[in-house]
Amino acid sequence: MRIEIAQAAECLKQCEDVYILIHQSPDGDCVGAGFALMQLLHAMGKRAKVLCPEPIPARYGFLTAPDSGEFPAKYVIGVDVADLQLLGNLRSTYEGHVDLCIDHHISNTDYADRVCVDPDASAACQVLYEIIQALGIPLTDSMAACIYTGIATDTGCFKYENATARAHEIVAKLKREHALPYARINRNMFDVKSLGRLKMERAVMEIMEFYLDGRCTMICVTQDILRQMQVEEAELDGIAGLPLQVEGVEVGVTLKEKEPGFYKISMRSADRANVSRICGQLGGGGHVKAAGCALRGTLSQVKEILVRAVEQELALL
Amino acid sequence: MRIEIAQAAECLKQCEDVYILIHQSPDGDCVGAGFALMQLLHAMGKRAKVLCPEPIPARYGFLTAPDSGEFPAKYVIGVDVADLQLLGNLRSTYEGHVDLCIDHHISNTDYADRVCVDPDASAACQVLYEIIQALGIPLTDSMAACIYTGIATDTGCFKYENATARAHEIVAKLKREHALPYARINRNMFDVKSLGRLKMERAVMEIMEFYLDGRCTMICVTQDILRQMQVEEAELDGIAGLPLQVEGVEVGVTLKEKEPGFYKISMRSADRANVSRICGQLGGGGHVKAAGCALRGTLSQVKEILVRAVEQELALL
Ligand SMILES: [Mn+2]
Ligand SMILES: [Mn+2]
Repeated sequence: MRIEIAQAAECLKQCEDVYILIHQSPDGDCVGAGFALMQLLHAMGKRAKVLCPEPIPARYGFLTAPDSGEFPAKYVIGVDVADLQLLGNLRSTYEGHVDLCIDHHISNTDYADRVCVDPDASAACQVLYEIIQALGIPLTDSMAACIYTGIATDTGCFKYENATARAHEIVAKLKREHALPYARINRNMFDVKSLGRLKMERAVMEIMEFYLDGRCTMICVTQDILRQMQVEEAELDGIAGLPLQVEGVEVGVTLKEKEPGFYKISMRSADRANVSRICGQLGGGGHVKAAGCALRGTLSQVKEILVRAVEQELALL
Repeated sequence: MRIEIAQAAECLKQCEDVYILIHQSPDGDCVGAGFALMQLLHAMGKRAKVLCPEPIPARYGFLTAPDSGEFPAKYVIGVDVADLQLLGNLRSTYEGHVDLCIDHHISNTDYADRVCVDPDASAACQVLYEIIQALGIPLTDSMAACIYTGIATDTGCFKYENATARAHEIVAKLKREHALPYARINRNMFDVKSLGRLKMERAVMEIMEFYLDGRCTMICVTQDILRQMQVEEAELDGIAGLPLQVEGVEVGVTLKEKEPGFYKISMRSADRANVSRICGQLGGGGHVKAAGCALRGTLSQVKEILVRAVEQELALL
C-alpha cells in the first residue's frame, strides 16, 4: 500500500526493534538514509540496525554509527531499495517480510507492506528528511551529514535534473543549522578516485572511437582489451558516462563483450537524443538519457548496427 | 569607498550609459554577472554594454545578450574584477575611471570610486543578486540563468566551501521561479571537455610522481615534456588540481619549468595541509589550500626541496 509522509512518520512512531535494509553496491544515498534512520530510531528510544548485503566501502565509513547489537527483528524497513533483487543475499530472508519501504525510485516494485515513495525527491534521504520533519524530531549533526551526503550523491553534487529547488532548500537548512563538513565530504565523494580507477579511465579514453562527426562515441571493451588493461570487469562500473565527457558528443555507447559474439550495450544521451528509443528498437530499453540493450554478432556487425541506430535518432533532432 | 548592498542599488538607480567591465580569462561568474547587470540596466531603461579584454569563449555564449550598441560611457562598473591588472588591455583606458565595483574577492584592491564587496558571497553573481533584490526588480529567466551560472561556476557546482546556505537558498529560489535549464548548463560547464584537454589531462596523469607514501603527488612539466605532449603552455591552465584527484593525496605539487633552472610551483592542499605555510617558507605565498612559489636549481634539487618542505608540513598534521 502506498502511503504519504505523515503515515510513514506514524509507522516510525509505532515500530520497534527495527532492521533497516539497504541495497547492494551501497552508495551515499542508501548508506546515508540507512544510518540517519537508525540514529533517528535510537533517538526515539528504539533498537535499530542497518543490514547491507555487502560490506560498506571505507569511503562511506564516516556515515556509519554503532547499532543496537544483536536483537531479533520485529519490524523491517527498506530504504532506497526499489526492488527485492537489490537485496542480494538478504533477499531470501526478508522477501515478504518488509513492513515499510522509504524510497524515491519511480520504478519501486511495491514489495513492502507500506511504501512511501516520492519519485520527485532527489534521493531516499530527501524522503526521509521530510518524514523526520513530520515527526518534529531535531536532526543531529551526524544525521545531517547522512542526509546531505545522500542528496549530494544522487544529484551528482547538484549537477543533474533532480537537483530541484526543494533539494537546495533542504541543503540550505542543513548547512544553516549544522556543523557540516560538506567541502570535505564532496571532495571524497566526487573528486577523489583510486589510482587504479584513474588509470582505468585513462585506458578507456585511449580506446574511445568517434563516429558521426564526433556526435557518437563508442567504447568497446572486449575480453582481449580487458586483459590488456589488466582490470577486472567489476572495476568498469560507471564507465558508461565517460564517452559523454567529450565536447560535441550527443550519444555515448559502451559495449562490453560478455562472451564471443555477445555484447551488452549501455547508451547515454548528453542532452536531446532519446537513447531509450534507440535501445527499444534494438530490443532493449531504459530511460530517455540512459538505456541499454544486448546484441549478437561479430564486433564489426554490432558496431555497424549501433552506429546506424544512433544516426537515425540524431537525424530526428 | 566601501559601500553596502542598498547603496550599490542606489548607484544603479542613478547611473546612466553604463560600461560594464569583466576580467580577462572570462569565466561563468564574470560573464554571468556582466550580462545579468546589463539586462537589469536595460530593464531600468538605461543603455549598457559589457566590455571584456578578451573574446568571450563560445561555451559562455548562452549567457550573452544584445547590448545597446555604440554610445559614450557616463558610468563604468567593474564586476568580479578584484584588481585592475585583470582588465588586461582595457586597463589603460579605464584605470581611475571605474565608478562602481561589484565583487566577492577579499583581495579586492579598491580601485573603484565605490566598492561593494562581500567576501562571504560565493560569487559576484550572488552580490549582484542581493542588489537586484534590494532594487525590487524581478529577474527574467535569462538573468536567472546568468546568476545561476555564476554561483555554480565559482562553487565548483556546489562542491567547495563557499557553497554556503545562502548560495543554496538563492539557487532554490531561482529554480522555483524560473525556467532554468540547469542540468544542461551544468553539463556544459562541468562535464564537457575538449578532446585536446582530455588528452592533455591523460598525458599529465601519465607523468605524475608519488612521494611520501602517496601523500604528496608531483607533476613536473619541463620544456621537454611540453614538447613531447604537444600542448601549448596556455593549455595547462588549471592542471594544478589534477594531483588531488588521487585517493590519499594530501598535497599536490605542480612544477613548471619557465626557463632552464627556473621553476614556478603551484601547490594544492586536499584538506588539512596548509600550503600557504609551505610556500611561504620557500619565498612564495597564497591561500591555505592553494599557494605558489618560484625556485631556482636543477630539477632534482628543486624536487628535493619541495618534498622536504611538504614532509615538514605533513608532520604537523
Ligand atoms: Mn537513491
Ligand atoms: Mn567570481
